[in-house]
Order: sequence, then C-alpha cells, then structure tokens
Amino acid sequence: MPSLKQVIEQRDTRIGRGFDYAVQGLIVLSLVAFSVETLPDLGPVARRWLNVGEAVIVGLFTIEYLAWAWVATPTRRYIFSFYGLVDLCAILPFYLTAGIDLRSVRALRLLRLFRLFKLVRYSAAMRRFHTALLLAKEEIVLFLCLTLILLFLAAVGIYHFEHEAQPEAFASVFHSLWWAVATMTTVGYGDVYPITVGGRVFTFFVLLMGLGVIAVPTGLVASALTQARRLEAEEKNADGGDEARRD
Amino acid sequence: MPSLKQVIEQRDTRIGRGFDYAVQGLIVLSLVAFSVETLPDLGPVARRWLNVGEAVIVGLFTIEYLAWAWVATPTRRYIFSFYGLVDLCAILPFYLTAGIDLRSVRALRLLRLFRLFKLVRYSAAMRRFHTALLLAKEEIVLFLCLTLILLFLAAVGIYHFEHEAQPEAFASVFHSLWWAVATMTTVGYGDVYPITVGGRVFTFFVLLMGLGVIAVPTGLVASALTQARRLEAEEKNADGGDEARRD
Amino acid sequence: MPSLKQVIEQRDTRIGRGFDYAVQGLIVLSLVAFSVETLPDLGPVARRWLNVGEAVIVGLFTIEYLAWAWVATPTRRYIFSFYGLVDLCAILPFYLTAGIDLRSVRALRLLRLFRLFKLVRYSAAMRRFHTALLLAKEEIVLFLCLTLILLFLAAVGIYHFEHEAQPEAFASVFHSLWWAVATMTTVGYGDVYPITVGGRVFTFFVLLMGLGVIAVPTGLVASALTQARRLEAEEKNADGGDEARRD
Amino acid sequence: MPSLKQVIEQRDTRIGRGFDYAVQGLIVLSLVAFSVETLPDLGPVARRWLNVGEAVIVGLFTIEYLAWAWVATPTRRYIFSFYGLVDLCAILPFYLTAGIDLRSVRALRLLRLFRLFKLVRYSAAMRRFHTALLLAKEEIVLFLCLTLILLFLAAVGIYHFEHEAQPEAFASVFHSLWWAVATMTTVGYGDVYPITVGGRVFTFFVLLMGLGVIAVPTGLVASALTQARRLEAEEKNADGGDEARRD
Repeated sequence: MPSLKQVIEQRDTRIGRGFDYAVQGLIVLSLVAFSVETLPDLGPVARRWLNVGEAVIVGLFTIEYLAWAWVATPTRRYIFSFYGLVDLCAILPFYLTAGIDLRSVRALRLLRLFRLFKLVRYSAAMRRFHTALLLAKEEIVLFLCLTLILLFLAAVGIYHFEHEAQPEAFASVFHSLWWAVATMTTVGYGDVYPITVGGRVFTFFVLLMGLGVIAVPTGLVASALTQARRLEAEEKNADGGDEARRD
Repeated sequence: MPSLKQVIEQRDTRIGRGFDYAVQGLIVLSLVAFSVETLPDLGPVARRWLNVGEAVIVGLFTIEYLAWAWVATPTRRYIFSFYGLVDLCAILPFYLTAGIDLRSVRALRLLRLFRLFKLVRYSAAMRRFHTALLLAKEEIVLFLCLTLILLFLAAVGIYHFEHEAQPEAFASVFHSLWWAVATMTTVGYGDVYPITVGGRVFTFFVLLMGLGVIAVPTGLVASALTQARRLEAEEKNADGGDEARRD
Repeated sequence: MPSLKQVIEQRDTRIGRGFDYAVQGLIVLSLVAFSVETLPDLGPVARRWLNVGEAVIVGLFTIEYLAWAWVATPTRRYIFSFYGLVDLCAILPFYLTAGIDLRSVRALRLLRLFRLFKLVRYSAAMRRFHTALLLAKEEIVLFLCLTLILLFLAAVGIYHFEHEAQPEAFASVFHSLWWAVATMTTVGYGDVYPITVGGRVFTFFVLLMGLGVIAVPTGLVASALTQARRLEAEEKNADGGDEARRD
Repeated sequence: MPSLKQVIEQRDTRIGRGFDYAVQGLIVLSLVAFSVETLPDLGPVARRWLNVGEAVIVGLFTIEYLAWAWVATPTRRYIFSFYGLVDLCAILPFYLTAGIDLRSVRALRLLRLFRLFKLVRYSAAMRRFHTALLLAKEEIVLFLCLTLILLFLAAVGIYHFEHEAQPEAFASVFHSLWWAVATMTTVGYGDVYPITVGGRVFTFFVLLMGLGVIAVPTGLVASALTQARRLEAEEKNADGGDEARRD
C-alpha cells in the first residue's frame, strides 16, 4: 500500500503515473472549460453547468494543492517553489472573487503540462532537444539581436518611403515596426503593405534578409540537432566498447 | 503464360508492372473525373459523358476487386484487409445509390497511389525517409505537443488583448485559435489580425516563437535525413569490406 | 592576334571572357528594355528611343548569331543546337513581324545567363549544388508526388467543408486546389480562406502537413549539401595523402 | 588609475567594458527617442522634452567623438575611419540644421551596435557564423543570381497571364515583379494575386520553385554551420592531443 507521498511524488510506479495523468487530464479539462466559457452565444443552462464544473475543478485543484503541501518537508518548500506559486495562482482567484478575467491565470498551469515530458518515454528526445539548445544558445542570442536590429532598420526605412503616401498605415516608426514584423517573418497579413516604388524596392531587400531570418534559426536547429545526435552516438560508443570504430 | 495471380500480385515482372500502372492510371483518371464533376457550369452533354465514364470506371474497379478476391487465399484475407475495404468503399456507393457526396469516398483510393512507391526505383529514397521518420519519431511527437501548447497560449493571449477592440474577429478563445494557427504557420490570410498596440507587441513574440515552429521540424528532418544517410553509408561500408576506413 | 573563333568560343582567355561579359550585358539590357516597354504610361519619345534600342540590340544579336554560325564546324551543328535555336527565337520575331507579344520570347535568352556560371569562379559551388541535386534526386521526386497527393486531398476536403458556405470561392475542386496551393506553401494571399468551423479545423491539420511540405525540401537540401561537402572533403583527402586521418 | 585612452579603447577591463555598455545604452536610447518623435499625436510638452533629450544625447555623442579623436594617434586616423565618419554623421545634422529628416542618419549608428558582439562572450558564436558565411559565400552568390533570374521569369510569366484580366495590378513587368517578390518569399500580402486559371496554374509552379527559394538558403546555412562546427572540433582535437580519436 503506497503512502500519499509516494502516489504524488513518484513517477515510475503505476499508481504515481496514474495520479500524474489524472492531474494532467484535469488541467486540460479546465482549459477547455475556460475556452468554452469565452464563447459569446452560450445559453444560460450551459453557463450554469460550466460554473458547476468550474467549482468542482477548483475544488479538486485545492485538494491537490493541500496534498502537495502536506507531503512536502518542510511544507514551505512547496509553497514557495515555482510550481507551488503557480498552483496557488490557479485556485486563488476563484476564492477571492468571481472576476472572470483573473481566471485566465489558469493558463499558467499549462506550464505543468511540461511535467508530462519528464515521463520516461520521451526523455531521450527531450534530452536531445536540451543538448541542441545548449549547443546553439549563443548563436540563438546573437541571431535574436541581429533580427531586432534588422527589424528596426527595416521599420525606419519603410517609414521614410511610405510615410507620405500612407500617413495612416505608416504613421510612425512604431507603426512601421508592425509592418516589419509581419513582413520579415513572411506572415504578410495584408493590412499594411508598401505602395510606392521606393517602398517596394526596399521591401525586396528586406525580404531577401527575411529569407535569412527564416534560414538561420532553421540552420541552427538542424546543425545543433545533428551534433547532439553525434555526441549521443559517441557517448554510446564510449560506453559500449567502441565496436563501430575498432576495425 | 503468366497466371492471373502472377499478373495481379507480382511487381517485378513486366506484365505485373503493366497491370499496376494501368490501375494507377485508372485511379488518377477517376479522380480527375470526380474533380471535373464538381465544376458548377458544366453543360448537360458533358455531365452525361461523365456519368458514362463513371460507370465504366466503377465497372473496371469492380472487375479488379473481384480479381483480387479471386486470387487471394483465402478470399476473406483480401476482403477484410485494409486495401480490400478501401477498394470496396470506392465502388459500393455507385451501386447503393446515385448519391454524389458518397462518391468522394473514392479519394480514399488515393491511398493506393502509395503502392507506386513500392516499385523498385524509389525504394532507396523511401527507405531513407522511413529511417529518418523512425529516428525523429519522438522529437516529432514532442514538437507537436509543444506546438499545441504554444497555439493555445497564443490564442488565450491574443483573446485578452483584442477581444474588446474586435469583438467579432476574436469572439472567443476558439476564434482566437484560428488566428493563432494562421499566424504561427506564417500563412497570414489577413482575415484576422491584431489592431491594438498590446496585441501587436504580443504578436511579435508569438511570431518569434513561430520562427521556431517552422525551424524545428525542418531541423528535425534535416538532421534525421543526415543521420539516415550516414547509417546507410556505414551499412554499405560494413557490407563492402570497409575500404574507406581501412587506412 | 586571336582568331574570331577563339574570341567567341574560349572562356579562359581575357578577350574570350570579355566577349562573354559583353553578350551577357547585352542580354540583361535587352530584358530591361523589354520590361520598360510594358510600362503603361510611356511617352511617345521614350517609346521611339526604345524602338531604336530594340533595333540596335537585335542587330547586335544577329551579328553574334552569324558569328557563332560562321565559326561552328559544320555550321548546322550550331544552328540545330539548343542554344542555336534559342538565339534564333530571340531575333526572328523582330524580322518577321512587329508583333509585341512575340518579343517576349527573348526571355528564353535568360537561359544563356546560365553560361555565366560556367565561368571558373563559381565552378566549385555549382558542382556542389549539382552533387547535392543528384544525391537528393529520388527524394525530391518522391516529395513532389506526396505533395501533389496532399494538395489534392486538401482540396477535396476543403471543398466539402466550405462549398456550401462559400459557393463562389470554393465553386469546385479546382477552385479549392487554388486555396490548397496558397495555404500549403504558407503564402496565404487572403483571397480565399475557410469560414466554417469544420473548414478551419481541417485547415489546421492541412497546415500541420504544410509545415512538413516546407520542412522536407529544406531538410533534403541541407542533408544533401552536407553530404556533398563530405564527399568533396573525402576526395580531397584521397588526393592529398590523407594527412587529416593519418594520426 | 586608467588613462582616458585605456577607458575608451580597451574592452577586456572592467572600466573599459563599462564605457562600452554606456555608449551602447546611449545609442539605443537615442534610437528610441528618434522613434517616439515620429509618433503623430504627441503633445507639445512631450515634444519639448524630446528636444531637450535630443540636445543632451547629441552633446554626449559630441564629447565621445572628441574623446575618440583625442586618444587616436594620429587624430585623423579616427576621423577618416569608417566609425569616425559614422559618428560624425550622427551628430553633424543637429548642429547644421533643425532638419528632422537628417536626424534619421543616426540609424547608421546602429552599425556601432555590432561592436557589442566583439565582446568576449559571443566571440565563439560570431566566429562560427563567420566561418559558415565564408564556407557558403559562393553558394549564396549563386543562389541570389538564380533567385533574381527566377523572379524575373515569374514576373514575365504572370504579366502575360494576368495583364488583360487585371490591367491595374499587373500593369507592367515591374508591377508583376512586386507580385513575384511577395509570392516567392511566401509573404503573400494579398494586394495582388492571380485570378485567371492560367495565372493560378502558373503560380502553382512558381510556388514549387518558391519552396526551393526558401529551402536552399536554409540548407546552405545548416550545412555550412554543421561543417563550421566540425572544423572547430577538429581544430580543438588537433590542439588538445586527439583524445577523442586515440582509441
């Protein structure tokens, strides 16, 4: 007979995993309920049932919160931990007020879904992603800095070309930044676009750089993952006695 | 003189391959006919000819179906197999009813086009894709989970920023999800886009993550294909006597 | 004093390269003139000058054509070669008629720009691209087939979801194919997009596959180029005496 | 007590780095101020404060300029250097005139932000990018040439298909080039798109090539970065005594 502590904290036993899945399912359910509640044309009956479901879910979350606090030694180690605060944020609004907006804080509980990945099955893939991220960390920071500079330069440039022709859409550099973001990531909503010849030629060069903005992170991920796989293989070789190389 | 069984089931003889190509061509033809039939401004003559063609094609499919069932031992092995059921679905609606909608089930026969790839010529490429898919399977599942979470968070975020300013376009979290999908994949139809300052700044961060959403699967495919090629080369080396490494 | 033949056919001497560059420049010039001519609000003076320039350029092309025919032995080897026919197509329309449309055939001469790449400087990069293309040829064909099938399935699917709600935009499977093309390549013009709930959910899955449609060719190019570089390095090693590995 | 020269020119001491960060911060601040100034609905108070801040920032830049000129031996080596001219351009407009447009020259100072990357922390990532750029230089030039040719061919093609149906949007080959740019980079603003059947089929083929336009630079970056990492690892091995291979 496992203790409460074992049920909650262990992940490699059957009952511990069952508890984990139940909590994850509850989180997903509460998020679906939260989303349904935002639908504009809900009838009063549906709304009442959602309120009941809301109360039940918050009740279950409260029980889970208290259980975690109970098994933690000392208790405050859980309460002041990151997940402890997140869990508190997810239930507190319900008790304090009926404020609808605050309930969206529950989205924070999505962070707990990441615990899913700590389960055994996906540990290899997760570790590889993590290794790749560490390998490419500096390049990613560098890339983000360069992207921000390029975005700013693109915004200043298009502002000068289009401000007079479209004083509404390109009212300021900040308005132009919106265009730069939508263009460089190749989203292109179509709410703002250049109409002058100069602006279009400028956009051509911006888009050439935009190809780089898409190509570089992809290349980074690809090369980092490739190296992460190689490192993994070398480790395995080192562990297993180097059969592949002992020729 | 090859038997019926040989004609139908073999793929490496000339007559077997000819039979295969004929069936594939018939499938493509039936799909083209199906598409043409949806054209809104067809004259009555064209429509009559399409009906005749339809009857001929279904007749040929029926003959093929019976032939497969005939050569299979026992017969029910084909009838209850996946392709047997698909083949049945493709011809049954014609006999049961003249219902136009049901005929679209024929699209399922597209699955049979995959048999094309079993032909010898593309086996190496197909096997490499398959190896790459197996290598990257866990990462792909992980990536899909992360993408779903990001989509949900993006939808909740934009809902809070834009709901008041655009109560129609961002009526609920589900409406916002549509925006999130079109934005994160950088499609950007332009039917929904943020207009508030907060919503646009939020979109900027969503798009930065969106770059990752494009970069990661590409990187996965690239690194997995690179490794698949290396494994292939190593196998060849192991088979062929390791000339390349025996230095 | 180099002969006419040497000037025209050689590419590694200074005068031969000069002749090459002159012809390339003339081609670019004629294409710019062709583009300028399509401008709707040209004055009569500009139009007259363009006609003069046109005559001069065609005259020079004719001289070049005759020179190539002169130095070729036998003459008909050039005349019936691919480039000979292209060159003829580029000048013939001017002599036969004043037809404006036919002059666009000159765009074919763009093909001659490829000769630029045969120059020494870019031969290494060109050869690497070529190797990569050969390595990935089968995968590219396979990918194109899969993409076509996916496009068709996406078009049939969206037709069923949106046909009733938008009988104009999704009038037939062919109209839906246009949507499928613009969506799967993440262009998203915004002229056609789903508005029903079913159509949007379907679009979500189409876009997930669309990510693959972008990821796979990129991954193919990346892994093929990586292998092309490796093959190149191995060749160099084999030539140079394997310093790097002889440790 | 470090001399003025040491404070300004050194980057690996604490005070030198502090000076560097202060200048970078000032640059970012001046750019933010420049952007805020373009907002259309600023009150007169805000505008006055911006003018004051402008004067202060230019004053500080002037002091920095004089300090650099002071420590440089000889002085003209700084004044006529690239950064010296950039720095001059950033302060001169303020003294010459109150012209608002000229102040945008300050954007040039963004170039100085690149000095940030010379700091120690990111040197490895920067060097790797640089190596990758050198490795892929020829391919990038080749790719850009091919892209320009494809863009031109796409523009000529769509002009012929759509000119009659949409004489406004596809008024000339230059107008069509705008469509080609927005389509091939998959931005798809939605301001111009084909409506004829021929134009749409043509767009399909253009987009297939557009996939390549996205795939090739990504693949280039990925394979070049992969090789840059390998070269780095080999150098490290060569330096460190080849532990990894001496098995």
